Amino acid sequence: MAEVQLLSLWASPFVMRAEVALVLKGVEYEKVPQDLASKSELLLTSNPVYKKVPVLLHNGKSVCESSIIAQYVDEAFPAPKDGVDLLPSDAYGKAMARFWADYIDKKVFDGVFALLKSAWKSEEEKKAAFENLLSTMQTLEFGLAEIGGEGPFFSGGSMGLVDVMLVPMLAWLPPIEEAAGLQIPFAERFPRLEAWFAACKGHDVASVLPSSTKLSEFITQAILPKYSS
Amino acid sequence: MAEVQLLSLWASPFVMRAEVALVLKGVEYEKVPQDLASKSELLLTSNPVYKKVPVLLHNGKSVCESSIIAQYVDEAFPAPKDGVDLLPSDAYGKAMARFWADYIDKKVFDGVFALLKSAWKSEEEKKAAFENLLSTMQTLEFGLAEIGGEGPFFSGGSMGLVDVMLVPMLAWLPPIEEAAGLQIPFAERFPRLEAWFAACKGHDVASVLPSSTKLSEFITQAILPKYSS
Repeated sequence: MAEVQLLSLWASPFVMRAEVALVLKGVEYEKVPQDLASKSELLLTSNPVYKKVPVLLHNGKSVCESSIIAQYVDEAFPAPKDGVDLLPSDAYGKAMARFWADYIDKKVFDGVFALLKSAWKSEEEKKAAFENLLSTMQTLEFGLAEIGGEGPFFSGGSMGLVDVMLVPMLAWLPPIEEAAGLQIPFAERFPRLEAWFAACKGHDVASVLPSSTKLSEFITQAILPKYSS
Repeated sequence: MAEVQLLSLWASPFVMRAEVALVLKGVEYEKVPQDLASKSELLLTSNPVYKKVPVLLHNGKSVCESSIIAQYVDEAFPAPKDGVDLLPSDAYGKAMARFWADYIDKKVFDGVFALLKSAWKSEEEKKAAFENLLSTMQTLEFGLAEIGGEGPFFSGGSMGLVDVMLVPMLAWLPPIEEAAGLQIPFAERFPRLEAWFAACKGHDVASVLPSSTKLSEFITQAILPKYSS
């Protein structure tokens, strides 16, 4: 058994966060794919509270919830050679990173997936979901300016906790915009976020994310039937 | 101006968390009461994202969100004389504390305030809210056994982050049970949580919480008119 295992599902944005945190810290790990339609004994015993992925197993001990996993990975493993930690070393920098990580968890993901759910609803509902998401992105643009310094990432020149929380959007946002037939005007309204997406696309971690094409097919085949009925 | 200020509201359970964290770490602070009906410039500029209390101001820098404030207080100030930090020193202990702190934030508070909201609804809705809360308390009892060791607190013999997150229930739960006309059978079903409440009542921090009698009047005068119409 590998020292570090990650109970995973390929399409889960929460699993992507855990995986990107592991890659950024240079931790070797083994992915253990799960089937949520038939939950494994390992999943049920290692995450008895939520029974969801991701679960990180480190020497048999389990850690659940993506933002808690990312912080655990940061604290349990040393910074990689020529690399940096995911959280700043000072208390105030840590608090700011946790604040924006939490904002992404609470508002951005809900906003993006609300747009997806609205894709098969009335034009009015879709417009409301889109306007709400634009307002959330406006706040996030402010957050990136507040803590990102000269950028391009939320922790400046290298990816940190906040970037880890947001990076699954690299894979998920394009197919959701496609499904809704609406595009967030990053270039016009959120230039720092646009530069953030570009920098993530050019980063090594982009290779651990699934392709937007595959997620687009997943939306059509697995999600559309749920919401369009 | 005091080095540490806390923008506060006397009845807010979130403010109580921040205040208890400060007291546990032995940090001197000044409370700056806020009026949410007419938000101060200080509140709007120090918490532009949520415009809510609590906000901790430390040498003019602001930290928002109760669990982030508690962790900041823990990291920014040394452990008090003869006292301990709010989070364990090891990465796994930190992850476990954050997991249960997050569970309380996401599930326990929602469950308790859902019971309050149900107090003026049908018997059926009230019963559903109560059953849901019992199930949440069952999970919390499991959590206390998982990380609390010999107790009585979630971090063993002294209060830590998880205790800070839950402690406002000491003040809020009795008047909510009274409003709903239902009592959680702690002694019969959740003996560790019952011992936790008893230990908190005997702890110094109990003195910074408002009395349940005062909260009961607040429920009747300020909350009941909102929900019973």
